[in-house]
Amino acid sequence: MKKLTVDLGERSYPIYVGEGLLNDLADTLGKHQIGTKSPHLIVTDENVAEHYLERVQSLLEAGGYRIATAVVAAGEKSKSLAVLEEVITVALEAGLDRNSAVIALGGGVVGDLAGFVAASYMRGVRFVQIPTTILAHDSSVGGKVAVNHRLAKNVIGAFHQPEFVLYDIATLKSLPERDARAGLSELVKEGFILDREFVYWCDTNAERLLTLDSEALQHALYIGCGVKAKVVSEDEKEGGLRAILNLGHTIGHALEAVAGYGELLHGEAIAIGMVGAARLSAKLGNPETIAAETERILRKFGLPVRIPAHMDTDAIMSAMMHDKKFSEGNMVFIIPKAIGDVEINKNVSSVWVKEVVEGLKRED
Amino acid sequence: MKKLTVDLGERSYPIYVGEGLLNDLADTLGKHQIGTKSPHLIVTDENVAEHYLERVQSLLEAGGYRIATAVVAAGEKSKSLAVLEEVITVALEAGLDRNSAVIALGGGVVGDLAGFVAASYMRGVRFVQIPTTILAHDSSVGGKVAVNHRLAKNVIGAFHQPEFVLYDIATLKSLPERDARAGLSELVKEGFILDREFVYWCDTNAERLLTLDSEALQHALYIGCGVKAKVVSEDEKEGGLRAILNLGHTIGHALEAVAGYGELLHGEAIAIGMVGAARLSAKLGNPETIAAETERILRKFGLPVRIPAHMDTDAIMSAMMHDKKFSEGNMVFIIPKAIGDVEINKNVSSVWVKEVVEGLKRED
Ligand SMILES: NC(=O)c1ccc[n+]([C@@H]2O[C@H](COP(=O)([O-])OP(=O)(O)OC[C@H]3O[C@@H](n4cnc5c(N)ncnc54)[C@H](O)[C@@H]3O)[C@@H](O)[C@H]2O)c1
Ligand SMILES: NC(=O)c1ccc[n+]([C@@H]2O[C@H](COP(=O)([O-])OP(=O)(O)OC[C@H]3O[C@@H](n4cnc5c(N)ncnc54)[C@H](O)[C@@H]3O)[C@@H](O)[C@H]2O)c1
Ligand SMILES: [Zn+2]
Ligand SMILES: [Zn+2]
Repeated sequence: MKKLTVDLGERSYPIYVGEGLLNDLADTLGKHQIGTKSPHLIVTDENVAEHYLERVQSLLEAGGYRIATAVVAAGEKSKSLAVLEEVITVALEAGLDRNSAVIALGGGVVGDLAGFVAASYMRGVRFVQIPTTILAHDSSVGGKVAVNHRLAKNVIGAFHQPEFVLYDIATLKSLPERDARAGLSELVKEGFILDREFVYWCDTNAERLLTLDSEALQHALYIGCGVKAKVVSEDEKEGGLRAILNLGHTIGHALEAVAGYGELLHGEAIAIGMVGAARLSAKLGNPETIAAETERILRKFGLPVRIPAHMDTDAIMSAMMHDKKFSEGNMVFIIPKAIGDVEINKNVSSVWVKEVVEGLKRED
Repeated sequence: MKKLTVDLGERSYPIYVGEGLLNDLADTLGKHQIGTKSPHLIVTDENVAEHYLERVQSLLEAGGYRIATAVVAAGEKSKSLAVLEEVITVALEAGLDRNSAVIALGGGVVGDLAGFVAASYMRGVRFVQIPTTILAHDSSVGGKVAVNHRLAKNVIGAFHQPEFVLYDIATLKSLPERDARAGLSELVKEGFILDREFVYWCDTNAERLLTLDSEALQHALYIGCGVKAKVVSEDEKEGGLRAILNLGHTIGHALEAVAGYGELLHGEAIAIGMVGAARLSAKLGNPETIAAETERILRKFGLPVRIPAHMDTDAIMSAMMHDKKFSEGNMVFIIPKAIGDVEINKNVSSVWVKEVVEGLKRED
């Protein structure tokens, strides 16, 4: 087992990465002062429940815990206020109180939803993240939790840090291939923003990662969580630096919104968005090779690097205007200056953005 | 104008109390770094809108502000996730960004709803409280914001402190009599918990307060906000002391839930709850005169001091079990030890509570 720390003063917390860690979950909860007196709630989705819920629940019950469970539909549509309300119904009926914890067992959807439940239930109870997707290395660290509004993703939420993150690599074995690829997109992203060496390690080890080799995954998730933890430690509430984690997300979120949640997975949309950001970089005077390299590496992971032709450019542009990363009307982009190095650019012309979007639609 | 401060380190903020303060709202926003670049959102209800919205909006527009407005239905039912979602739709359509502020213009319902919008929109934007009811002296100070769930009041929310509270006494003139009385209930409560002198000042000046005499109101709201500010400054997140503000609320909330939101106003339910707490006090060995005095003073304000006979005792008891003030199964009550002095008692027997509830139902 490897351990990392997200350093946030009295809100600091550990990330445990290793194989088989779920077996010790009851102990880990106890170590973190989550006791057996109050009931706790596991939030998960139907796919994850099928594989792991019974086991986790009985492990915890064997440890003396009373556990309520809320199993939501798999997929982005569960990140809604309506589902939040249903989960809170379960929490109330199970008698969760202020000493209770909400435990997210699942991918980013479950983590974001359960985290907002934890943030808002009785104005905030404790929260535990048990990520079960590769993408969730990102979503489970940093305390950003949210649900979607039909007009924009993640616009209703909070900052609510977990007590700990427990990453059991063993749970990744059951991950569908497409979700694994999408998760690797966001994992390579951690390299693109801050760690050139890691990008090329991923490039070299793409095959091992795609076949979910334990050792490769453990290394990559440790590095990926480490990048995330480092950035979050320096800027908890996205006052500045933290925005770099959004490389590829401005275009990516717009694509997800326009496609209708579901057509593109988050990591897929972000892959396209990273290529878009790299092309904007070229327009800003940086080497064209950044875009070419970005594209080559993402293709190696079988990720999409073009915008589906049927998507309307104006709809994409207007979705971007709604995106929360535009402060007071300026277009803000995370721009790669080299592989493994980015800047926050607050003066990106919308004309260029539109050109890039159109370019990504036209080509194959 | 009088000024108080809620002392919370970097989250400290002022409360301005005075007549005609709305006239300077644009200036006050500016003084608090809420600028004219980003649009802002006023949340209000239909009654308050009728009296003040046009004026406030045009005052702000004259000051160069772009203002979006969300007018919700009057009453507790607007404190719901469904209405929250509608308000957020308005915010998104108006292009509110991270530099925007949400301005609550109204009573406690509007304040709680708008505050949770501010807390959760884009994971938190700035918030301004312009209370227009007497009761809102309480709800507008302290940062507790929430909406209701059908099973329990205020269980979905956050702690989100405003930038400032602007209390314009002039807006209280249009308050319906029943709402004024209900507000005075919570105002006298501030005395019952911490300020014996203020209780007897209210007793003496009941008539002036009921006729909404400006001078009397300004004094009473200044004292009332002061008590609230003091308690909140010492315990922002209700770790301990702050619970004393909930005198009368354990039974009160249960009555509101069982009555169906609307039959009893919040302040009315709290009046009955304060009598209940005083009777529990007698069972715990304190003088019977506390209950008699509490009842006499509340009656002077025309407030109910008995539970409507049709309400089911078991339903009231079970609503209390759901109440968030019960931690790990114990029944916790705020108990008056004298007029102007309370304690937090964590071992109140549910048998006594039931006796008190039944007693309050039987008598006239
Ligand atoms: N909070 C943040 O900082 C942050 C950061 C990045 C992404 N996100 C959010 O994360 C979400 C995407 O996360 P995701 O890709 O993990 O999506 P997801 O949670 O929907 O999981 C993807 C799919 O895999 C299934 N699944 C999960 N774990 C499994 C397992 N171990 N075995 C088999 N199937 C499994 C799920 O049921 C789902 O169908 C998006 O909503 C995005 O907005 C949040
Ligand atoms: N957040 C907190 O700390 C806190 C504390 C106490 C109470 N509360 C909440 O406050 C709410 C009750 O507040 P309230 O009594 O102000 O209720 P309210 O907001 O519903 O206002 C009462 C009525 O008066 C009307 N009104 C408001 N201002 C008016 C004016 N100036 N002129 C004419 N009509 C006016 C409203 O439309 C409404 O019909 C409850 O939901 C309660 O839970 C919150
Ligand atoms: Zn992402
Ligand atoms: Zn109250």
